[in-house]
Amino acid sequence: MMDYYNGRILLQPNEIPKEWVNILPDLPSSMTPLINPMDGKPVPPEMAFAIFPKECVLQEVSQEPTIPIPNELREFFAKTYRPSPLHRALGLEKDLGLEGDKIKIFYKNESVSPTGSHKPNTAITQAFYAKKEGTEELVTETGAGQWGSGLAYGCNLYELKCTVYMVRASFIQKPGRKILMRIYNAEVHASPSKFTESGRKFLEEDPEHDGSLGIAISEALEHSMRSDKIKYSLGSVVNFVLLHQTIIGQEAKMQLAKIGIEKPDIVIGCMGGGSNFSGLMIPFVKDKINGVHPDIEIIGAEPRACPSICKGEYRWDYGDTAMKGPIVKMHTLGHTFIPTPIHAGGLRYHGMAPIVSILYNNKLIKATMHHQTEVIRAGIKFTHTEGIIPAPESAHAIKEAIDQALKAKENNEKKVILFNLSGHGFFDLLAYKEYMTGNLVDYELPTEEIQKALASIEMPKIDDTQF
Amino acid sequence: MMDYYNGRILLQPNEIPKEWVNILPDLPSSMTPLINPMDGKPVPPEMAFAIFPKECVLQEVSQEPTIPIPNELREFFAKTYRPSPLHRALGLEKDLGLEGDKIKIFYKNESVSPTGSHKPNTAITQAFYAKKEGTEELVTETGAGQWGSGLAYGCNLYELKCTVYMVRASFIQKPGRKILMRIYNAEVHASPSKFTESGRKFLEEDPEHDGSLGIAISEALEHSMRSDKIKYSLGSVVNFVLLHQTIIGQEAKMQLAKIGIEKPDIVIGCMGGGSNFSGLMIPFVKDKINGVHPDIEIIGAEPRACPSICKGEYRWDYGDTAMKGPIVKMHTLGHTFIPTPIHAGGLRYHGMAPIVSILYNNKLIKATMHHQTEVIRAGIKFTHTEGIIPAPESAHAIKEAIDQALKAKENNEKKVILFNLSGHGFFDLLAYKEYMTGNLVDYELPTEEIQKALASIEMPKIDDTQF
Repeated sequence: MMDYYNGRILLQPNEIPKEWVNILPDLPSSMTPLINPMDGKPVPPEMAFAIFPKECVLQEVSQEPTIPIPNELREFFAKTYRPSPLHRALGLEKDLGLEGDKIKIFYKNESVSPTGSHKPNTAITQAFYAKKEGTEELVTETGAGQWGSGLAYGCNLYELKCTVYMVRASFIQKPGRKILMRIYNAEVHASPSKFTESGRKFLEEDPEHDGSLGIAISEALEHSMRSDKIKYSLGSVVNFVLLHQTIIGQEAKMQLAKIGIEKPDIVIGCMGGGSNFSGLMIPFVKDKINGVHPDIEIIGAEPRACPSICKGEYRWDYGDTAMKGPIVKMHTLGHTFIPTPIHAGGLRYHGMAPIVSILYNNKLIKATMHHQTEVIRAGIKFTHTEGIIPAPESAHAIKEAIDQALKAKENNEKKVILFNLSGHGFFDLLAYKEYMTGNLVDYELPTEEIQKALASIEMPKIDDTQF
Repeated sequence: MMDYYNGRILLQPNEIPKEWVNILPDLPSSMTPLINPMDGKPVPPEMAFAIFPKECVLQEVSQEPTIPIPNELREFFAKTYRPSPLHRALGLEKDLGLEGDKIKIFYKNESVSPTGSHKPNTAITQAFYAKKEGTEELVTETGAGQWGSGLAYGCNLYELKCTVYMVRASFIQKPGRKILMRIYNAEVHASPSKFTESGRKFLEEDPEHDGSLGIAISEALEHSMRSDKIKYSLGSVVNFVLLHQTIIGQEAKMQLAKIGIEKPDIVIGCMGGGSNFSGLMIPFVKDKINGVHPDIEIIGAEPRACPSICKGEYRWDYGDTAMKGPIVKMHTLGHTFIPTPIHAGGLRYHGMAPIVSILYNNKLIKATMHHQTEVIRAGIKFTHTEGIIPAPESAHAIKEAIDQALKAKENNEKKVILFNLSGHGFFDLLAYKEYMTGNLVDYELPTEEIQKALASIEMPKIDDTQF
């Protein structure tokens, strides 16, 4: 009898989780509110409702331990790409010389969605709620385009207009995802663009401005304020987005249980705004907090060119560069900071999800940094051994998983390592080409630059004692 | 209770077929041999063994009704991407106004393989046999690159060297698949290339020669003759390749049975060399021939720019342009014919699989032609309704499926339509961009051009009466 199930563990469509896992009630320190930049006070609900779909705003602050996933969404996931497979990385294990079953590496394969990443999990959900609430258009920003194409897909599904401000560096470097969004009927603008006041300001400074996620957020926010039929959609950072992604970790848990593994020892994800990482780890960190599995190690991997957790400061800062949106308490490199255009465009954000920031502050999760050269090298090793070309973002998690496996091997430890393959790299082949031709360069963010960006932050006085 | 299974029908890894379905013993007229261009006589086994992996040569002429799939291969499929899903195209059905359950459209989703098409089904198999037989290198040609990337993936898996001659038009138009092959360690040359005598001949005529599959085959064949450690690998046309693809149709049959559908009424695939079409339809045409389901309609869709079945002649012709390889009896437009560089590069072959040709001659299957503009339009409709961007090749099958569904609707008929989504279009976005910007042009192959190409065929005398 062949061990078919050891290599790839599949769930049936009716095993899609029935609820999202909400970490808010379990946080060891309480969630900070979004702050209105006009007065330094918490954003009132009516203001939040004007920006985001109403249901998402309610989820943003919900203290329920779980939130039911609407049946319509579960049915849609079942018809398309969920549950996603869990693979044991047998090829990679062999390559790393991990003999026997002492060290096992598993990855959750979120690259199987129609747009090739985990992003549709929340994009479809937000579009579903927006449509129900009478919204006509969703507007957003995107870096490498994984989020933009995810939202374009979601909006097309529910017949909503979709407008995407795409970071110019990626707009030029990744034409594929731009066409992808266009095919799904989205309107795509290189950001900074001439279509918003914020964009024009940055274009005046530099007509060839590379852009950043922070600037693109400013433009999308400004655009969303033009009509109450337009809502702003976010692909990471905020609580409700992380919530929608917890479907990933719940499935992974069930899949491991199917082959008799009660828990992983190490859970790994790459971190940009924190959504794919959180989607995988939240169900596990909940078990850690609640003492069910107190010893699970959880690690987020950042790029050295934009390490908001590893080198940023935990403080109040704007979520966007032009200070159009709310102020958030999070790990940040400063909203004026423009990261170098590395290939992992999805990890080029100056801040980090407040949930991730709080978990990190409370030592419930760890963080690590990698250079893009070593990351792409790990991505190539993964392609050679597992066949799937990972997105440069996801390759950060692969690099960390390899490091952890080799460490365990050296220490002769028994470990189950689980990481999130958040997306495939079919649209990021330039990164691989540059690596193979010796043209990929690394960039370490100098501490002075961070200090400068942090020192330049100006904002209204916020009374921290009230939260 | 939600009808989860209606939208996407999954099989478990242990349900991967245990054998390939061989159509040779069921053919109504006997299979013709490959002919040696040197003397007009059938290629002797030792010559065939020098070209292809030995096990493949044995399969090429086997009269066994089924051939066991090696366990090692089934295990590998189970670990990676098989069984592939069968989807009901509920979104497309709704868009076409197919109310109720009278007309159902299903598609087999072969885009889920690591390289995004059905090609790995045979690539992995050929690499597996080649490795076992002590071969060190496989060499092949590729059009759009689906086959080349499939073989590069297979060779990387079994640590074989892989060399790919890629049709220059696609080499330039589809840089993504070229990088993909490179990541899998393959060597990729634009064809015609300076690396072979055949290539140099065409380059002399025109240094910017677009190339064709026929020319690329000549170069690959010539390259393979340099050493007995190098074997030539084919991605379509020959019997053993079609055999390896029958895993597709067998799975589809099981999946339909799981939801109580005994048989489809119409089976559709696009046809280039004939492999994805045959992979899906062979198990069904077998049932048709054997009287189990005599009324299944089977339709192959060709591009109007290269309609080898619809407009070609059934006769002896060279499989390659430079006449390096065997002579084959098939539907052909003439080996000197260079088709216009349409986006469905995988359908730009002057000939057609002998199995498909024989089935067509015996009226067991039908053929149809479409223009690339209507094909890409159908592809966009599919993307909007089903979420998945199809390869331009696969979009030919979609176009035909839509036409058949609308015809059935008009005639108020009850139909189950099944087509093969042979691959995704992530590397073919240029076709979509050109369509959306109004730059996609159609090309109808003039009859005189075919007549000219067919009239120019020169070959040794072949005694047809002996087969």
